[in-house]
Amino acid sequence: MKTTQIGFIGTGVMGRSMAGHLLKAGYPLHVHNRTKSRAEGLLRQGAQWHDSPGSVAAVCDVVFTIVGFPDDVEQVYLGDKGIIANSQFGAILVDMTTSSPLLAKRIYEQAYRPGVSTLDAPVSGGDVGARDARLSIMVGGDQPAFEAVLPLFRLMGTNVVYQGPAGSGQHTKMANQIAIASCMLGVSEALAYATRAGLDPETVMQSIGNGAAASWTLSNLGPRMIKGDFAPGFYVKHFIKDMRIALESARAMGLDTPGLAQAEALYQKLAALGGGDDGTQALYQLYR
Amino acid sequence: MKTTQIGFIGTGVMGRSMAGHLLKAGYPLHVHNRTKSRAEGLLRQGAQWHDSPGSVAAVCDVVFTIVGFPDDVEQVYLGDKGIIANSQFGAILVDMTTSSPLLAKRIYEQAYRPGVSTLDAPVSGGDVGARDARLSIMVGGDQPAFEAVLPLFRLMGTNVVYQGPAGSGQHTKMANQIAIASCMLGVSEALAYATRAGLDPETVMQSIGNGAAASWTLSNLGPRMIKGDFAPGFYVKHFIKDMRIALESARAMGLDTPGLAQAEALYQKLAALGGGDDGTQALYQLYR
Repeated sequence: MKTTQIGFIGTGVMGRSMAGHLLKAGYPLHVHNRTKSRAEGLLRQGAQWHDSPGSVAAVCDVVFTIVGFPDDVEQVYLGDKGIIANSQFGAILVDMTTSSPLLAKRIYEQAYRPGVSTLDAPVSGGDVGARDARLSIMVGGDQPAFEAVLPLFRLMGTNVVYQGPAGSGQHTKMANQIAIASCMLGVSEALAYATRAGLDPETVMQSIGNGAAASWTLSNLGPRMIKGDFAPGFYVKHFIKDMRIALESARAMGLDTPGLAQAEALYQKLAALGGGDDGTQALYQLYR
Repeated sequence: MKTTQIGFIGTGVMGRSMAGHLLKAGYPLHVHNRTKSRAEGLLRQGAQWHDSPGSVAAVCDVVFTIVGFPDDVEQVYLGDKGIIANSQFGAILVDMTTSSPLLAKRIYEQAYRPGVSTLDAPVSGGDVGARDARLSIMVGGDQPAFEAVLPLFRLMGTNVVYQGPAGSGQHTKMANQIAIASCMLGVSEALAYATRAGLDPETVMQSIGNGAAASWTLSNLGPRMIKGDFAPGFYVKHFIKDMRIALESARAMGLDTPGLAQAEALYQKLAALGGGDDGTQALYQLYR
């Protein structure tokens, strides 16, 4: 049986770790990235460079992509030198970018005619989760394609869940970001309130950190807010991108999400003040 | 040495469990409640009934109160037949109602002249926490008074933290409620979005329940939202009370809390639709 050829397009902080796990497992890996220098670590480990997404797709059975914005996804998949136009019959294309559910459906439909399957499979867990192969991977698309790619997903993540037809992975990630968005406001406001009231926020955490107010955000980002550590775990500018996609998608479904709208407006304000490259916990600065 | 006489005013769902722990530990207990019938369980166990808060205070070394609204607290403490006017010199009065930090300071100041100490010590953990003596107790007031009452607090809670001068317990509880308020929006919107997008919300929970979107609200109230179980763990009407106190207190400190304001407005809407006696997870209904 012919060895599965794997493509990986997008070798930024997330992609290079994820692709590295595939390479270490022994798969021949074909890579492309807008900035070639960021693929060099993988090339040294034996990955083969290609000058375009289409050139990767032409020789691969499975192609993973994790790029920046929905516009990048659209170009990589649907452009002239893009993946779909150059894919082999029977190939499976997996977009792991956090992107638009509507775009994921469009890509799925356009790939169908040339006999190509697509999956939308955004992740959570950040750079640490990518490095440690402990990502949560939320997958939409046809179930047989999911089953075929599952062994590869398991090289990158510990929580791999099939969520439903094309777009369902992105919708799940949007639900994740919607839950986080308002929670970030709650934690910021709670700690700002505590500080303004003259309390010691670390002592307050002892009282409220493990009860009904408990959250990942409070436990993990609360202490950074208190310390004034706004270094990026997850960039404000990327969170804004995600919230905009979620808002657009919610509107398209006729769902009003005032908490999300409020959060997006506040993060916009933060970005306008120069905080786009800070971590999401920098929202706290708006309250000081 | 004379046995410590303990008073307990307010024997509702929370108070009767908390008072019961003191009684079981062997302390003589003097009780009063607006509705006498709700104290009968404690009376059968040996507590002594009094017709007014002042009558309780007149014979007690330590008096606990847990009543409904700040107006009730004010009347119980500062009214003619109230606790302060009738307390013994050296008594310690402990309000465990979730109430106004400003009122807590006022009570502290008015008690000071007759030689009485006060503590504000609101709790979290709900009726189950009260029953199992596993409450989180957040305490403000003078530290010596806190140290004196600590053995009694430990009969009612597992997480007892001194937060600072008078009002600090209430401020801490407000921080707790502020964190919860926006989180509740996030969880409601995330699950409403998921459902509207055609996903199975329980499968979505598998993807998002343990990562950066994780929260007590998502894990504990999310499943009830999905099932349409809006039975009260914590009443909407009481949550509105708490959010109003927090908003008032934040405004008094010049702190803008848009997430909290939004949450309070939505819960008001829910109450106006008849949801005041539902549990807080009923917010989800606004999104369906």
